[in-house]
Amino acid sequence: MIFSSKLIEDAVQEFSKLPGIGKKTALRMVLQLLRMDKQEVDSFTGAVSRMRHGIQFCADCHNVSDGVKCDICANPGRNRSQVCVVETIRDVIAIESTQQYSGLYHVLGGILSPLDGIGPDQLNITTLQSRVKDTGVTELIMALSPTIEGDTTVYYIARQLAPFKINITTIARGIAFGGELEYADEMTLARSIAKRLPIENYVTVQGK
Amino acid sequence: MIFSSKLIEDAVQEFSKLPGIGKKTALRMVLQLLRMDKQEVDSFTGAVSRMRHGIQFCADCHNVSDGVKCDICANPGRNRSQVCVVETIRDVIAIESTQQYSGLYHVLGGILSPLDGIGPDQLNITTLQSRVKDTGVTELIMALSPTIEGDTTVYYIARQLAPFKINITTIARGIAFGGELEYADEMTLARSIAKRLPIENYVTVQGK
Repeated sequence: MIFSSKLIEDAVQEFSKLPGIGKKTALRMVLQLLRMDKQEVDSFTGAVSRMRHGIQFCADCHNVSDGVKCDICANPGRNRSQVCVVETIRDVIAIESTQQYSGLYHVLGGILSPLDGIGPDQLNITTLQSRVKDTGVTELIMALSPTIEGDTTVYYIARQLAPFKINITTIARGIAFGGELEYADEMTLARSIAKRLPIENYVTVQGK
Repeated sequence: MIFSSKLIEDAVQEFSKLPGIGKKTALRMVLQLLRMDKQEVDSFTGAVSRMRHGIQFCADCHNVSDGVKCDICANPGRNRSQVCVVETIRDVIAIESTQQYSGLYHVLGGILSPLDGIGPDQLNITTLQSRVKDTGVTELIMALSPTIEGDTTVYYIARQLAPFKINITTIARGIAFGGELEYADEMTLARSIAKRLPIENYVTVQGK
């Protein structure tokens, strides 16, 4: 695309660095910003800048945080004996948004993937061990990807934490609510039959 | 969505004000910015801020501009006798990107639409008249939307400029290159037959 303004071109260039944003979408955003009041644009750039410069990672769970500890770890109302182990902060946001979980989290920062050079030292596993050792955790809920790497990570962590005799669970896999059997992949369908539940466990999730 | 960081939440909120960006896409962008170096993010916010505060509108053609006159109007190599009349700066970018047009532009800022309260006074029509009157323009190429409003605007401008005896043309409408007849709408197909061209006019556009 040929712009007759370097200012526009630079802004479009910067937007196209974001994921899934091509030149045309970037231009649409830039032109929208151009239509907005200067104060609104200042509020946009200010929020982005404060976010990048101000964000910290929680010393306990490695979730994003506005201070030394994240809001979840700092909340006295959360159940400190349960820790849900996830790969990324996106997973924390997804689970928090269900409003169904009241325990704490531990963000690993990825999963074991030797081919990509990600071993135990690249993940937040040592701090997970310390938490289990020192803070009265009784259950770890593993909410990792249902892939070979995810399973490997679950087994690795379970082995590392075996001495502590805590309860290690994984989130349920199966057919999604509202999902139709004929569109489910064979693996999921097969496992949802193999791991079928007694009818009294069939509860509907409340809330949004 | 529930975020455990106000900084993230604010940034997501700001991104979701952009067109076509929902909360999930906004979060993906914010998390990408979080992964980027602080300098890169400063370069992003800097470009956006400089764009919004620095941009001007060309005194001649109302295109976006880094100075009083836009790069196109300021370019001595452009053909000053031809002016292409468009609705928005996006149209200028689209036509410039074909690299096939060497004349000037005039950005109307919209088209006549009485129902939306857009009359001649809301558009840059007076300045177009002055340009035609004072600057030796011999041809106006009307590149407006092929809608009733667009056609009305073309007729209105043509009538206003009738005293100046300039050549007023509109861009060709028809089946797109590579377009298949069976998928063309009836109106376009009917008009492309009615306005058929002698074979010697059938030239292929060069360049990209």
